[in-house]
Amino acid sequence: MKLLDLIVMPDDATTTIAELKEQVKRFCEARDWDQYHNAKDLAIGVSTEAGELLDLFRFKSPQEIEAMFRASDVQEEIEDEMADVLFFLLRMAQMNDVDLSGAFERKMIKNEKKYPVEKARGSNKKYGRA
Amino acid sequence: MKLLDLIVMPDDATTTIAELKEQVKRFCEARDWDQYHNAKDLAIGVSTEAGELLDLFRFKSPQEIEAMFRASDVQEEIEDEMADVLFFLLRMAQMNDVDLSGAFERKMIKNEKKYPVEKARGSNKKYGRA
Amino acid sequence: MKLLDLIVMPDDATTTIAELKEQVKRFCEARDWDQYHNAKDLAIGVSTEAGELLDLFRFKSPQEIEAMFRASDVQEEIEDEMADVLFFLLRMAQMNDVDLSGAFERKMIKNEKKYPVEKARGSNKKYGRA
Amino acid sequence: MKLLDLIVMPDDATTTIAELKEQVKRFCEARDWDQYHNAKDLAIGVSTEAGELLDLFRFKSPQEIEAMFRASDVQEEIEDEMADVLFFLLRMAQMNDVDLSGAFERKMIKNEKKYPVEKARGSNKKYGRA
Repeated sequence: MKLLDLIVMPDDATTTIAELKEQVKRFCEARDWDQYHNAKDLAIGVSTEAGELLDLFRFKSPQEIEAMFRASDVQEEIEDEMADVLFFLLRMAQMNDVDLSGAFERKMIKNEKKYPVEKARGSNKKYGRA
Repeated sequence: MKLLDLIVMPDDATTTIAELKEQVKRFCEARDWDQYHNAKDLAIGVSTEAGELLDLFRFKSPQEIEAMFRASDVQEEIEDEMADVLFFLLRMAQMNDVDLSGAFERKMIKNEKKYPVEKARGSNKKYGRA
Repeated sequence: MKLLDLIVMPDDATTTIAELKEQVKRFCEARDWDQYHNAKDLAIGVSTEAGELLDLFRFKSPQEIEAMFRASDVQEEIEDEMADVLFFLLRMAQMNDVDLSGAFERKMIKNEKKYPVEKARGSNKKYGRA
Repeated sequence: MKLLDLIVMPDDATTTIAELKEQVKRFCEARDWDQYHNAKDLAIGVSTEAGELLDLFRFKSPQEIEAMFRASDVQEEIEDEMADVLFFLLRMAQMNDVDLSGAFERKMIKNEKKYPVEKARGSNKKYGRA
C-alpha cells in the first residue's frame, strides 16, 4: 500500500463552496495579497483566466476538442484553466461576503423565468441577455 | 409566519459542487440544450459572462466600487454576473466529467510551488503565468 | 438630390489610423474623459467590448453565423461591436503615444518568424503563444 | 548610412486601414488559414488577445502601469498585444467584407447621441450599453 492511497483527495460530491473559499482565503492571506485583491482586479482575474481557458479551443474543430479531453495532459491543462477561473471567482466572493450558492440559487430562479421550458426547449435564442 | 420563511435557501456552508452541477444539468436537459453545449461554446459562455462581470467595474474608482457592494440592487447585479460565470463553469465540468474540486486541489498544489510564501509575500509579481 | 448624398462617408481605402485616433481624441476630450482613461480601464474596455462581439456568436452554428452577416440589422450589430473594440484600442494608443501601424508592422515581422510558411501552412498549431 | 535607415517604417499618419487589411490577408492566405478563420473563431481571437493585453495590467497600480510604458521592453510587450487584437479585428473585417472605417463612423454617430456632451461631460455613467 502506497502513501498516496491514504490521502483522501477532495471531490465534488463532498466538497462545499465554503471549504473552497476557506482554502483560497488561507492561500492569499499567507501571501499578504489582500492589498491587491480589490473587486476590479479580481474581476480582471476571472476574465483573463476565462480567456486562457477559451484560448485552448481557438481554431479547433469539435473532433479535435473531443480528442483534447481524452489526452490526459491536455485534459489537465483544460482543468487547470477551469481551476484558475474558479480561484478568482471564489476569492471575489470571499473578499466581498458573497454567498455564491445563494446568489446562484437566486439567479437560477430568474433563469427559469427568462428561459421557460416550453419556449427554450431546443432553442439557442436569447430572451434578453443571459 | 410567511411561506418564504419556510424555504431553506442553500448556502456555501452546506452546498456541494456536485449539488450545483446536478442543478445545472437538470436545467439544461429540461431545455434540450446538450446539442449546443460543446466545450468551445461553453468556454465562450464563461468568458463572455466574465466580461459582463468586469464591465460593471469599468472606469469606476475603488470608492465607487465599494459603494456598489453596499447598494443592494447593484450588489445583486454583481452577484448575478458571478452566478452566470459559475453556471457555465459548472456546465462545462458536468458535460466533460471534470471533478472541479479535484482539479482545484491539484492546481492549488501547483500554485503553492509557483508562488512560494517566502517569495510571493506582499508581491504582485508573476512567476510564470498563473 | 438629398443632403445625405453630399456627405462623403469615410472608407478603409482612404482612412488612416491617425485620422481615426484624432476622431477618438476629440470625442473623449469634449466629454472630459481623460480622467477615466488610464491604460488599465481602457484595456478593460477593449476586453469587455470584445466579449460583446463574441457573445453574438455564442451557441450559433456556422450556417447561422453566415446568415447573420447577410441580415443587415444583425450585420450592423456585429459591426457596431467591432467598432467598439476599435474605439478603445485607438484610445489606448492615442493616450499612450503608441503608433499602432508601427507596432503592427513590428509584430507581423515576429509573426513571420513564429509561423514560417512551410511549417504553418494548413495548420492550426501554435508555435508558442500568438 | 545603414541599410535600416533606408527602410521606411509605416506609421499611423500614412497607413490606411485597407493597407493593414491587405497585409493580414496576404499573411493568412500564404498559410492557407482561410479554413480556420470563421467569424466565431476570429471573435475568439479578438477576445483572447484582448485578455492577454489586459492581463499585463492585472494587480498593477497606476504608478506601476506608467512605469511599464516607460520601460521599452514592457512597452513593446504591451504594443505586441495591441497588435494581436488589431490583427484579428482586421482579419474578421477582411473575411466578412466589413469596411471598418465606415462601421466606425456610423457607430461614432450613435455614440454622439448616446453620450451627448452636456450630459456626459466629466461623467463615467453609462446611458445604456456602450
